Amino acid sequence: MKVLSVIGSRSQLIRAGAVSHQLFAKGVDEVLLLTAQHTDDIITQVFFEEMDIPVPKYSIGIQSTNQGAILGRMIEGVENAIIKEKPEVLLVYGDSNSALAGALAANKHQISIAHVEAGLRIGNLQSEGEVNRLLTDRISNLLFCPSSKALENLKSEGFENYTCKIFNVGDILQEVAYYYGSISSSKSDIINRLGIKQTYALATINRHEYYDDLSKLKGIVKALNTINREQQVIVPLHQSKLRYFREINIEPIFKIVPYLNYFDMVELLKSSNIVLTDSGTVQREAFYFGKCSVMLRHDTEWAELVQNGYSMLGSTDSEFILIAYNEMISRKPDFTADIYGKGKASERIAEHLTHWNEK
Amino acid sequence: MKVLSVIGSRSQLIRAGAVSHQLFAKGVDEVLLLTAQHTDDIITQVFFEEMDIPVPKYSIGIQSTNQGAILGRMIEGVENAIIKEKPEVLLVYGDSNSALAGALAANKHQISIAHVEAGLRIGNLQSEGEVNRLLTDRISNLLFCPSSKALENLKSEGFENYTCKIFNVGDILQEVAYYYGSISSSKSDIINRLGIKQTYALATINRHEYYDDLSKLKGIVKALNTINREQQVIVPLHQSKLRYFREINIEPIFKIVPYLNYFDMVELLKSSNIVLTDSGTVQREAFYFGKCSVMLRHDTEWAELVQNGYSMLGSTDSEFILIAYNEMISRKPDFTADIYGKGKASERIAEHLTHWNEK
Repeated sequence: MKVLSVIGSRSQLIRAGAVSHQLFAKGVDEVLLLTAQHTDDIITQVFFEEMDIPVPKYSIGIQSTNQGAILGRMIEGVENAIIKEKPEVLLVYGDSNSALAGALAANKHQISIAHVEAGLRIGNLQSEGEVNRLLTDRISNLLFCPSSKALENLKSEGFENYTCKIFNVGDILQEVAYYYGSISSSKSDIINRLGIKQTYALATINRHEYYDDLSKLKGIVKALNTINREQQVIVPLHQSKLRYFREINIEPIFKIVPYLNYFDMVELLKSSNIVLTDSGTVQREAFYFGKCSVMLRHDTEWAELVQNGYSMLGSTDSEFILIAYNEMISRKPDFTADIYGKGKASERIAEHLTHWNEK
Repeated sequence: MKVLSVIGSRSQLIRAGAVSHQLFAKGVDEVLLLTAQHTDDIITQVFFEEMDIPVPKYSIGIQSTNQGAILGRMIEGVENAIIKEKPEVLLVYGDSNSALAGALAANKHQISIAHVEAGLRIGNLQSEGEVNRLLTDRISNLLFCPSSKALENLKSEGFENYTCKIFNVGDILQEVAYYYGSISSSKSDIINRLGIKQTYALATINRHEYYDDLSKLKGIVKALNTINREQQVIVPLHQSKLRYFREINIEPIFKIVPYLNYFDMVELLKSSNIVLTDSGTVQREAFYFGKCSVMLRHDTEWAELVQNGYSMLGSTDSEFILIAYNEMISRKPDFTADIYGKGKASERIAEHLTHWNEK
């Protein structure tokens, strides 16, 4: 069996790596294609070696700032690989343009589509991620849900009546977090390097919407400044975003550190006492490392974390963020609950993938 | 209000023309973009004049034979027009790649999407048209259904729970057929030109799947040859398809005529006594001109015509086609039934479009 895996970001690549190892063990011929949607200095040869992830055979660098053009050229790039490789299954992850582009290209060539992290919803069609998820799910043949809620979402949209198969396999990120978390302290000296001695909150602000609409960035910076008076706030940030912080007329008094490699990030997560993030990935990582979190968003596709008290929605309004922070900083929930399958997702995905077409 | 209309084929263009006149009357600033998916000698300056259709401001010629690349480049082409024109609404028609590409580009720029001929389904995700329809519908804000069945389809998929508006406006093609049908005899001398004196069946075979899989073309040709022994069969055919007829080892004994302009086609339809077609457009035109039809397909998105006895599915199997032909040639159904709104669609579309965002 030949599988073409289409990957759009560092974070997808790390999750795909776990599946790659399982597919390899089952004798599946997997070809990786990196759309390089977020290619930067972070995805390098060293990265692949350090993370023990197979190097993609294809890397299609998309040069455009227009979202439509990015999607369009990705479709064409994936199609070229499909024509060359003739895979039986195309595997995509999450809710990026890469996932949708891969699915559309595969659909045009009648290649079966498997979607990892299927069924997630925030209920807002204004969100690019939501649209990518919805449309990718709709044309997928094999849907791997990370939670029972995601499975329920698909059922409520009638997917049981469609000609596709749906499985709740759990979240791959959980096993990835456990695995890299167990070795990160030998790979990173970030705590020493930054001279951290006290408790701190870890925050991430990466959504491009917040840099398009600086009032949102401002709300977040205001809140983080206030929190920083109580305990240090650390914000890893890509170089290219620094100029926006200079534009908003509020001096950030928290600690901005250069964008980190994965192990540094894991170490910072493990040693923090609370996480504030606009990323669904970091929100789950916080949970896996036993940290409460505040979402710097109005919504989350990982609703279980909010429903079960591990996370609160803080939006981008400084007051809301502070209310959520004050609530979450004192909460001590039980982190041993099994919400996302306890780290067996990649094994289950590989198992279903190699057998799904048999009956 | 500014509307960008994205159009992918001659047949879409003719329907869009009817809407254009209504939008113009309401003071809407409409810009037409032709993706030229099917550009050929048929869409010319003369065509626009003769049909009284506004000439598109944009025409993006897509040069590729790969379906993914066609879709991808269309997205980019439409996006460029969106960036330049900044429309409030993007209007798409039917189930072509152009419709999906337009919708995806608009979605990326948070432009509202209106979809004409929404809600049609054949229940087969292997069909490119079906996928284009499904995905376009899913991200549209304003869905114009051509029939009550199409509206029901959307309801059964949960669209009433989504943040979009749905209207059954009827089929634009009906008013288009009535209008052009009333003037076609002054515009075309095709009956004389071909020297037609006797009754005849009109057939169309245009789906590219049938030229990719010649066994299907063969089944159709065999059936048409048999029918031609009873009465003449006339097949308008584009030049580029002739070579496939030479490849199948069955000599077509029916009459193949060069691909026709719209008025010639309407005249041929009006004077035929039965229609055999692989086109949903021609299937409806047959109904509007009071002709029974046989679908040269396994399925149709215009199920009402089959359910109400105006059409039968003949597939591409010569035996099935002949059974359906023999049944339909003797049927005399009542063609005055109101299935598709009796020719008020374009007026209703323009009305809803100009008011939908008011409350």
